[in-house]
Amino acid sequence: MSWIDPHIRDVPDFPKPGIIFKDITPLVQNADALKRAVDEMAALFDPSSYDQIVAIESRGFIFGCAMGYRLGKGCTLIRKQGKLPAETMACEYALEYGSATVEIHKDGLEAGQRVIIVDDLLATGGTVEAATSLCRKAGGDVVGSAYLIELGFLDGASRLDAEVRALRTY
Amino acid sequence: MSWIDPHIRDVPDFPKPGIIFKDITPLVQNADALKRAVDEMAALFDPSSYDQIVAIESRGFIFGCAMGYRLGKGCTLIRKQGKLPAETMACEYALEYGSATVEIHKDGLEAGQRVIIVDDLLATGGTVEAATSLCRKAGGDVVGSAYLIELGFLDGASRLDAEVRALRTY
Repeated sequence: MSWIDPHIRDVPDFPKPGIIFKDITPLVQNADALKRAVDEMAALFDPSSYDQIVAIESRGFIFGCAMGYRLGKGCTLIRKQGKLPAETMACEYALEYGSATVEIHKDGLEAGQRVIIVDDLLATGGTVEAATSLCRKAGGDVVGSAYLIELGFLDGASRLDAEVRALRTY
Repeated sequence: MSWIDPHIRDVPDFPKPGIIFKDITPLVQNADALKRAVDEMAALFDPSSYDQIVAIESRGFIFGCAMGYRLGKGCTLIRKQGKLPAETMACEYALEYGSATVEIHKDGLEAGQRVIIVDDLLATGGTVEAATSLCRKAGGDVVGSAYLIELGFLDGASRLDAEVRALRTY
């Protein structure tokens, strides 16, 4: 049992039958829980070990940008294809059925910049694996990735070659 | 001239020919600019005049959730159709061609809760008009809306019946 649990809602059959979705919106709606989650996520990695936060669209923006504000770090955005307006680099990755593409601005990171990738939840790790690849293409050094929740039974961490840390593992 | 201007990039012909897109990602990537923007947006309305922040997907999450962290307020999310997992209320609104639908969770607000709506940029106001309607359906009292940028020449504020405040008007 973690303090987080009462703020996470299990929604059955979303986005499709058989999936139990971990809904984080009750946590984000609660002022104290939002503050505590951002503070604790900001403490998952030593802030002196990285320079910049990379936030994944769109729930990663919630935590990543508040962590950036909290720690005095900038946030680079990784978005779905076609959303970033300037010159981008893209990475396609496999989904259960089909594929998806994420993008980063070509000037999203500086050469050698040390980053952590932030998202709300680590599931199979496909998006973060693609995000890691994009950060490296853009010149970044990926120190690790930070989450509110890790779905340990999906073993996404095994696909990622940098440190994975989460506030709560199910 | 505002301190914000050097951090906003004009991208011509995005998302379609003839549009000059105001790209906020350089501001978000810059630690000092992100911090200053969140602090100044948090000061646009007296924090004692409202209880909760309503953040619009997805660039509204960047500023809205950091403001919530900064001010010790919770954030309720308004998302595009099909993204919120629990029971929702929806509002459709007209676009130049066709329409779009945004949603809020039915339990996203408490009865009588005073809110400000946060997004990165106010353009024609269609999305925020729909968001205002959703907040009211969910029982909220809309005190106003806060933006990093207002495109004054599109006159979105004239469609909104609550106070509109932005850090920078073009």
